[in-house]
Amino acid sequence: MPQLSVKGNLMPSSPIRKLVPYADKAKQRGTKVYHLNIGQPDIASPVPALDAYHHLPFDVIAYTHSEGTPEYRKALSDYYKGRGYEVEPEHFIVTNGGSEALLFTFGVIANPGDEIIIPEPFYANYNSFAVQSEVKIVPIQSSIDTNFGLPPIESFEEKITDKTKAILICHPGNPTGYLYSKEELEKLKDLVIKYDLYLISDEVYAEYLYGGEKHESVLGFDELKDNVIVIDSESKRFSMCGSRLGAMITRNKEVLSRALKFAQARLSPVLTSQYAATAAHQNVGAYFDDCRAEYVSRRDLLVSKLNEIPGVICPNPKGAFYCMVELPVEDAEDFAIWLLNDFNLEGETVMVAPGNGFYSNPETVKNQVRLAYVLKKEDLERSVEILKAALKKYPGTIH
Amino acid sequence: MPQLSVKGNLMPSSPIRKLVPYADKAKQRGTKVYHLNIGQPDIASPVPALDAYHHLPFDVIAYTHSEGTPEYRKALSDYYKGRGYEVEPEHFIVTNGGSEALLFTFGVIANPGDEIIIPEPFYANYNSFAVQSEVKIVPIQSSIDTNFGLPPIESFEEKITDKTKAILICHPGNPTGYLYSKEELEKLKDLVIKYDLYLISDEVYAEYLYGGEKHESVLGFDELKDNVIVIDSESKRFSMCGSRLGAMITRNKEVLSRALKFAQARLSPVLTSQYAATAAHQNVGAYFDDCRAEYVSRRDLLVSKLNEIPGVICPNPKGAFYCMVELPVEDAEDFAIWLLNDFNLEGETVMVAPGNGFYSNPETVKNQVRLAYVLKKEDLERSVEILKAALKKYPGTIH
Repeated sequence: MPQLSVKGNLMPSSPIRKLVPYADKAKQRGTKVYHLNIGQPDIASPVPALDAYHHLPFDVIAYTHSEGTPEYRKALSDYYKGRGYEVEPEHFIVTNGGSEALLFTFGVIANPGDEIIIPEPFYANYNSFAVQSEVKIVPIQSSIDTNFGLPPIESFEEKITDKTKAILICHPGNPTGYLYSKEELEKLKDLVIKYDLYLISDEVYAEYLYGGEKHESVLGFDELKDNVIVIDSESKRFSMCGSRLGAMITRNKEVLSRALKFAQARLSPVLTSQYAATAAHQNVGAYFDDCRAEYVSRRDLLVSKLNEIPGVICPNPKGAFYCMVELPVEDAEDFAIWLLNDFNLEGETVMVAPGNGFYSNPETVKNQVRLAYVLKKEDLERSVEILKAALKKYPGTIH
Repeated sequence: MPQLSVKGNLMPSSPIRKLVPYADKAKQRGTKVYHLNIGQPDIASPVPALDAYHHLPFDVIAYTHSEGTPEYRKALSDYYKGRGYEVEPEHFIVTNGGSEALLFTFGVIANPGDEIIIPEPFYANYNSFAVQSEVKIVPIQSSIDTNFGLPPIESFEEKITDKTKAILICHPGNPTGYLYSKEELEKLKDLVIKYDLYLISDEVYAEYLYGGEKHESVLGFDELKDNVIVIDSESKRFSMCGSRLGAMITRNKEVLSRALKFAQARLSPVLTSQYAATAAHQNVGAYFDDCRAEYVSRRDLLVSKLNEIPGVICPNPKGAFYCMVELPVEDAEDFAIWLLNDFNLEGETVMVAPGNGFYSNPETVKNQVRLAYVLKKEDLERSVEILKAALKKYPGTIH
C-alpha cells in the first residue's frame, strides 16, 4: 500500500472518540447513558425552516452561487443589521458549516508554518483545521479561576512572532461559555492594530447569552474593518446542525475575493439549507427568546447542582451551552471511561467529554470535563445525581 | 492589512469567471444567452427525493455521523452491489459533494510537493484542490484526434518520480465525455501495481453512458483493493447538485480511518440531503433510463449538428454530458468573449466554456471549448445555429 500523508497522521481524533466503544458497550449491557458530551441541541429547528423544506418551490435541487444565494446573504445581512452591524450581503461567503468558514479563513490568511494564537481551552476542531492548513496553533492558557476570562494581554504579546497571522477567539466560548467583556475586546483590538494581525471571531453562539446582555460582535470595531473575520453558523442559532450552513463575514475585499476562489472550487453551498434558513430568518418570531429561556433554566439548574457536589467547581457560563467543570479527580478521561465501563446508578450513567481534548496539549489540564446542557432539565438533574454518586464511589476521587 | 497566503493567490479562478461580466452585460442589453457553459442539469431531481424533503420525519435538523447516516451508506452500498461491486457501508465516507471527497483524498494520501498524474484536459477544479492540498498536478495530454482516449502508458511511466502518489482519472470524463475501455483500465491497473500508486477514479457520471455499455468501475479490480479510491456524488446521478452530497469509496482501511478524521473535523455531512438521496436510491424506478434517453438524444443532436459546421470537430462523447469541441479559431476564449460582447443572432447568443481552463497550462490548447448538453433539444439546436452564424461572421475564423 502506498505511503500516506503526514497530515492525515497528525489529524487529531475527536476528544470523545476514545470513549465511544465504552458507551456502546454500556448500552449493550442495558445501561442508559445520558449524553452530556455532545453539542447537539434537542430543541426543534424553527417551524418556518421546517415548513420551507416541506414546501420547496423547485424540482431541481440545483447549485447556487458559490458565495451563497442572494436571498440568504440578504437575510444574513438583515440579521446583522438588526443587531447593529453594517454588513452588506457581499460581505458574506456562505459555507458548509462554520467548519468550512474556518478552513477558508486559514487557507486565505496563512502560509504553512504561520501561527494563530488561541486562548485555551478551545473548540477541539481548531486543532484539526490547523493541521489541515499546516498552521501552528499557539495556545495561551486561560484559567478556571478567572472563569476562563481573557488571559493577560502581555501573555499574547510574548507569543507574537513574525509568523503570527491572527488571534482566534470563540465568543461566547465553546467549551467554556465565557463571554468576552467590551474591555477585553478593546484590549484585543489594540493588540491587533499594534501588530497588524487578523482577528478571527467565532461567534456561532452569539444568540445564546443568558444575562440579558447584547452580544458585542467584533464587527462593531470599524477600525478593524480589514482585520476582522467572523465565523457564523446556523447550526446552534436555529438548531440546524445537520443543515451544514455557515458563513465567513468580513469587510476586507481582498480576503473576500480570495475566499471566493476556495468557494468556487467546491462549487456551491447547500441550496435547501439556504432556502430553509432564509425562511427562519424572515420569520424568526420568538424563537431566540424561547430557546434562551430554556437554555438559561437548564444552565442555572446544571451549574447550581454541580457546585453542590463536594470538590466540583463549575464557573457560571454566560453564553453558549457548555460548561467546563473541574472535578476532584486526577485524570478526568480515566473517570469518564470508568463512568461508562464500571459504574451505573440504578442502570444509568453519564457520558462526559474529557476536558484535555480542548487544550492544545492534552497534558496541560487533566481534571476538567466539558458538559453540554442540551438535554431536558429532568435529564440534566438526573445526570448530576449520577455524577455525584459516581464521584462518591470512584476510587480516584480526591476527598 | 496583514499579508495573505500564497495559496489563496495561486487558487485558480473558474474557466468561465472572466466571461461572466460579458454575459451579464449582454443580458442587460436584452440579448438572450443560451448557457452551454455550465454542468447544471435542467432535469428534475427524482420524485422520491423531493417527496422526502416534503415529508421530513424529524423536527431537529441534527448532525449525522461524520461518515454519514447508516441508512444512506447502506443505500450506497446496495447501489454499488446492484452494479456488481462488493463494497460494504463501511467503505463509504459521505462528504459535502464530490469536491470534499477529492479534498479528503488528497489530504490523506499526499504530502506537500507530492505529485498526482492526471490526463488532460481535466475537470478544472482538480487544479484548485491541488493548490489547497499543496499537491503538484502532473498533466499528460490526451488528444482530440483519439477522442481524448488514454494517452500511451509510456507517457505515464516517463512522468513517474519518487514524489508520484496517484493517478487520477475522470471516468467518464468531464470535460471530454470519454469512457475508458476495459483494456485502458487494465493498463492503468498494471501501472498502479508496478509503481505502488493510488488510483483515484472520479466516477460521478457513471450512470450516464450512451452506448448501452455497463460502467466498469475501478472498484472491480480486486488486486487494487488497497489502491483504489472512487469519488462518488449525487449531483449528476440524481440531478441534485445543490444537495452537496458525495462520498469517497475505498476498501483500504487505513485510508478510511485517516479520511474519517478529516470528516470528524467538519462534524457531519448534510442530514436532509442524505435522507432525500436515500429515498431516491430506494425508489429509483426508471429514473436513470429516462434521463439517459433524454441525454442521448441531446448528445446525438448536438454532436451531429456541430460536426456539420465547417472547421468544427466534435468527438462523439460516450458518457457524461459534455463535449470538448475544436473550433476553427486561434483563441477560443477571445471567441467566447466576442460571442457575448459583439455578436447576436436575432437578439440571441451563446455562452461557452473556453477549453484552455481544462488544461493544466492554459496555453497548451487554445482552440477548444467545452459545451454541456443540459439544455432542452430545441435550445441546443438553436444554440448550434447561433454558433454556426457566429463562426461565419467572426473575424478570427480560420476558413
